[in-house]
Amino acid sequence: MNEIRPIHWDDGILKLLDQTRLPVEQVVVELDDYRGAVTAIRDMQVRGAPAIGVTAAYAVVMAAKEVATDDKGTFLDKGNFLVGLQEAAQAISAARPTAVNLQWAVRRMLEVAESEPDLSNMVNRLLGEAKLIQEEDEEINRRMGDFGKSLMPDGGSVLTHCNTGALATSAFGTALGVIRAGWETGMRFKVFNTETRPFLQGARLTAWEFQQLGIPATLIVDSAAGILMRQGDVSCVITGADRVAANGDTANKIGTYSLAVLAKENGIPFYVAAPTSTVDLSIPSGDEIQIEERAGSEVTHFQGAPTAPVGVEAFNPAFDVTPHRYISAIVTENGVVRAPFVEGLKLALGGP
Amino acid sequence: MNEIRPIHWDDGILKLLDQTRLPVEQVVVELDDYRGAVTAIRDMQVRGAPAIGVTAAYAVVMAAKEVATDDKGTFLDKGNFLVGLQEAAQAISAARPTAVNLQWAVRRMLEVAESEPDLSNMVNRLLGEAKLIQEEDEEINRRMGDFGKSLMPDGGSVLTHCNTGALATSAFGTALGVIRAGWETGMRFKVFNTETRPFLQGARLTAWEFQQLGIPATLIVDSAAGILMRQGDVSCVITGADRVAANGDTANKIGTYSLAVLAKENGIPFYVAAPTSTVDLSIPSGDEIQIEERAGSEVTHFQGAPTAPVGVEAFNPAFDVTPHRYISAIVTENGVVRAPFVEGLKLALGGP
Repeated sequence: MNEIRPIHWDDGILKLLDQTRLPVEQVVVELDDYRGAVTAIRDMQVRGAPAIGVTAAYAVVMAAKEVATDDKGTFLDKGNFLVGLQEAAQAISAARPTAVNLQWAVRRMLEVAESEPDLSNMVNRLLGEAKLIQEEDEEINRRMGDFGKSLMPDGGSVLTHCNTGALATSAFGTALGVIRAGWETGMRFKVFNTETRPFLQGARLTAWEFQQLGIPATLIVDSAAGILMRQGDVSCVITGADRVAANGDTANKIGTYSLAVLAKENGIPFYVAAPTSTVDLSIPSGDEIQIEERAGSEVTHFQGAPTAPVGVEAFNPAFDVTPHRYISAIVTENGVVRAPFVEGLKLALGGP
Repeated sequence: MNEIRPIHWDDGILKLLDQTRLPVEQVVVELDDYRGAVTAIRDMQVRGAPAIGVTAAYAVVMAAKEVATDDKGTFLDKGNFLVGLQEAAQAISAARPTAVNLQWAVRRMLEVAESEPDLSNMVNRLLGEAKLIQEEDEEINRRMGDFGKSLMPDGGSVLTHCNTGALATSAFGTALGVIRAGWETGMRFKVFNTETRPFLQGARLTAWEFQQLGIPATLIVDSAAGILMRQGDVSCVITGADRVAANGDTANKIGTYSLAVLAKENGIPFYVAAPTSTVDLSIPSGDEIQIEERAGSEVTHFQGAPTAPVGVEAFNPAFDVTPHRYISAIVTENGVVRAPFVEGLKLALGGP
């Protein structure tokens, strides 16, 4: 089996597997400008919190290359360079508001830029850091898989939402990585995955990844999760996260909250898989998380064809917040955190 | 405003507004054979429990016309006629399994056939009964509107699912009729309607009907209902029903159960609008309701275009059952029934 790696840096060019075209076509977008990366993130050619973080890191490299020299190719002084870089970094950070990994990665890159005295070495130094973020992400996902796999229901069934696989990360995946890790230890269970409207990450991306992995999975519309749970056909639910607040409240793809409520109502454990880069200890609860509202046309149209009458107004929040009381455990690369999450998440992040 | 009437009998021809083509095109399907009506029901050119009932009644008329005479145009005797009619009736009843109105209407038509001694008058007599069922349905819907409108949240907001308007009935609608009745008394409230995957009855049909009625409505994906409820943006939920068991358990479009659980979790009243023809006192609870499972291709494809990789398996239940404990009230044409539903539904049906 070939590992799926959706982000590839190739000699100054950022190559992204275009996730708006999958599974119908495997098209690679090639970018040499950080503005292109911002557009790719905003238009969801690359999506998934960890993948956005990695893309943002490479975007900072491209920005540094651009702002390091003046029109004549002469290196700027460090102060002017940092001003230019921070401006670009702000644009990159603003590409999408909810996933904290984006801001986390940009901040980490800026810290490296600030610490590097030699401007002629800057791009190389930043490129090294971006590659490290990418490599670490895969390693982190594999560790989440190792910690989380014991939660998988051997002989039962697992339901997942949206796409949290290799496509959402550097490789391996978060929630999908946990499912994969369980499967690869020899456990056998049924897998259900939601189609995940409106962008259909589940139908288009997750279904495709399960096919690549050879794990049989059954696709459902988002609103069929309830009947499955009520019939006893779901042993556990596992999703990813776009931002986890200090108290464990979790922002994730729209519909996650519904799954968590249905799971609680039916006595089914609900798990979140999130690298510590997704945990935002600066906000005490999910109430502080900004929920991105995307264009209504994502709901009223499918691949350009209208699904609703002309002129219909649509409300299209991309995420919702699941309060921590619905969450049985959060799988991180440093261990499985259970309630009380405030203490557990601090420990997982290596805090005091 | 023109009333929408999706079913029209015109001199031996059953004309159906094709609901698979709306809102892009207004195409009328013309049928002169009951087999065509069975196909139209099965393929959802006509859908919605009351509309299926009306269509089935006209299908029995077409079947009676066909089986009343032999090859030479000579009337059969009554016994042979009834054998032929019952055979056709069985095929009509089997078009879709969940909505009880289909079987209810066919049974009512068969009773009329059995009571009519004069075979040369049979088709006219049955046609009269089918037209009566159609007219009664509109009248019933208006009465449900009258009883239900006081439940509508003046100054608040209401969420509905699937399509329960004129298109799902003879005219006026069930749950949508209640919303309309409230609006027409001068109440003002926000309306949210789900797109209702996989068939998109909400996006395609309900959004269109609200436009025709001049009632502003906002479309959401099914899984965005949770965030709206948690934010306090939903004052009540109202849906239709495909079959209500004696204890109030209600089968309705897939996703209804999820909405009911979310409503309960957020302290929001959850209402069902159902004519008594949708109530099936012969089954004690929703466990006895057969849930139709439709082709997975409805999930994996959109208007012929794939939304998932080739070969993906999909589970596509068309309905789910909402246990009565989640239901605040059931609006019928004979009044609003509240728990305990066993007694209330019997009363509403005029039982002992």
